Amino acid sequence: MIADAPATETGPVAIICGGGTFPLIVADAVARQGRRVVMFPLTGFADPATVERYPHHWAKVGQFGYFLKVARQEGVRDVIMIGSLVRPAIRQLALDWKTLTLMPRIARYYYGGDDHLLTGVGRIFEDHGFRLLGAHDVAPEILVPEGALGAHKPAEADSADMTRGLALLHAMGPYDIGQAVVVSNNHVLALEAAEGTDEMLARVADLRRRGRIRVQTGGVLVKAPKPGQDRRFDLPSIGPATIAGAVAAGLSGIAVIAGGTIVADAEAVVAAADRAGLFVVGIREAP
Amino acid sequence: MIADAPATETGPVAIICGGGTFPLIVADAVARQGRRVVMFPLTGFADPATVERYPHHWAKVGQFGYFLKVARQEGVRDVIMIGSLVRPAIRQLALDWKTLTLMPRIARYYYGGDDHLLTGVGRIFEDHGFRLLGAHDVAPEILVPEGALGAHKPAEADSADMTRGLALLHAMGPYDIGQAVVVSNNHVLALEAAEGTDEMLARVADLRRRGRIRVQTGGVLVKAPKPGQDRRFDLPSIGPATIAGAVAAGLSGIAVIAGGTIVADAEAVVAAADRAGLFVVGIREAP
Repeated sequence: MIADAPATETGPVAIICGGGTFPLIVADAVARQGRRVVMFPLTGFADPATVERYPHHWAKVGQFGYFLKVARQEGVRDVIMIGSLVRPAIRQLALDWKTLTLMPRIARYYYGGDDHLLTGVGRIFEDHGFRLLGAHDVAPEILVPEGALGAHKPAEADSADMTRGLALLHAMGPYDIGQAVVVSNNHVLALEAAEGTDEMLARVADLRRRGRIRVQTGGVLVKAPKPGQDRRFDLPSIGPATIAGAVAAGLSGIAVIAGGTIVADAEAVVAAADRAGLFVVGIREAP
Repeated sequence: MIADAPATETGPVAIICGGGTFPLIVADAVARQGRRVVMFPLTGFADPATVERYPHHWAKVGQFGYFLKVARQEGVRDVIMIGSLVRPAIRQLALDWKTLTLMPRIARYYYGGDDHLLTGVGRIFEDHGFRLLGAHDVAPEILVPEGALGAHKPAEADSADMTRGLALLHAMGPYDIGQAVVVSNNHVLALEAAEGTDEMLARVADLRRRGRIRVQTGGVLVKAPKPGQDRRFDLPSIGPATIAGAVAAGLSGIAVIAGGTIVADAEAVVAAADRAGLFVVGIREAP
């Protein structure tokens, strides 16, 4: 039985941590609610500095049996997976016995695209008595709200670029691709796939530096969850690095889906955007 | 009046030349048909080595009056525009008087996206008594035929990737984006926008080198014209550099639309692909 109101829960929360700063941000949010945090940083992905302030158990990808044992000892029911995790090659996995018994299932999910793998993994956790939550279930304050986040607002041309970018992301939705684009003056400058948002922004900066894009400034980064995406995993996120990347790329601003995007270090994001004259706006999804 | 059978024409052909080797390849094809070639290399874009063997008149982008005068002196009716041309910023144009009188029209096309600009420019040439042809109208032998070009053929998994890539390009079609993707094992690794195919392939090679893509080899580069694209301009093209890029990216092969893709130096393309074990295949468009 899965309850609908995790915010009323008080038990400990296991946080399975990939790379980046999000695991710590989520841990702090959970701790602020008075719940005990137990972190499971993934070897080779998680940054030790992001877990040292909380009880933690290092694990390798594939050690589900180890997780089961420790999480049960800790009395955990709610589990959150958060942080970047480049999907490891088979040879990089450390499979314990429990995981091996699950491999036929996992292999089936593995070849079905990112979404299938994650949804499948979620089902495995649930079959073992856990409840897999999204970071925003326990920490709704990390989601981008609707409207402008800082001092600056999109101009009319920016809004047109936002609409075009959102429509394009929607068209690309069924193909399970990284969901971000850069649109400038109605032209699509860059589309994100395996390289991720930061590298896509660096590419736009580089193309502009080399005169490969005719309009030297302006444009909007548009990010959105995939249509039908399981929002417990891998919600789009922005943070100070996104602002720096957008500024270097000469953009006017950033548009993300309100309620469907995580913001890391919102204060730093707003301060940096305001300083640079960049707008950051939470928008509704296309109707 | 515009005739339908340019192949039966015998008059001179003006070739307005952007960058790359295509202008020379087309010029040679035209010359083989016994027609006189008059080249108009664009300063800053065309490579002098590609025009020196034919009568040529250097011009700057925006010198339509100059083109009119010289082309009429040369008795030209048929015009081909070919070669890469990063769209210049307004300040990079050298506008003569004739072009200035056309600026309201050109500006209207300029902000409508690549296709609108090119189709509009084509209309301007036709309004002045020229006939704008595609390179393939005068040199159909430069188009990729249906089927495998070399010794290697796509495996079943490659065919699935080709189908997925083509469907994705079709979905992106209305957004006027560079039309190429890399799909590997059902995952979209890269999407081309302003950076062009060669740089997209270099990105895939780089992501693989850095372990950012879990499967280290395999995958297909799929290129297709935009749906509804005016095929007199800017057909997708492949050449020896495309093969080298695909090999460096660890791909299995390249799929392009038969009859809708130009191949530069087909012999070198086939030889390099065969050597590398890469397939190159002309496919029909999605039904």
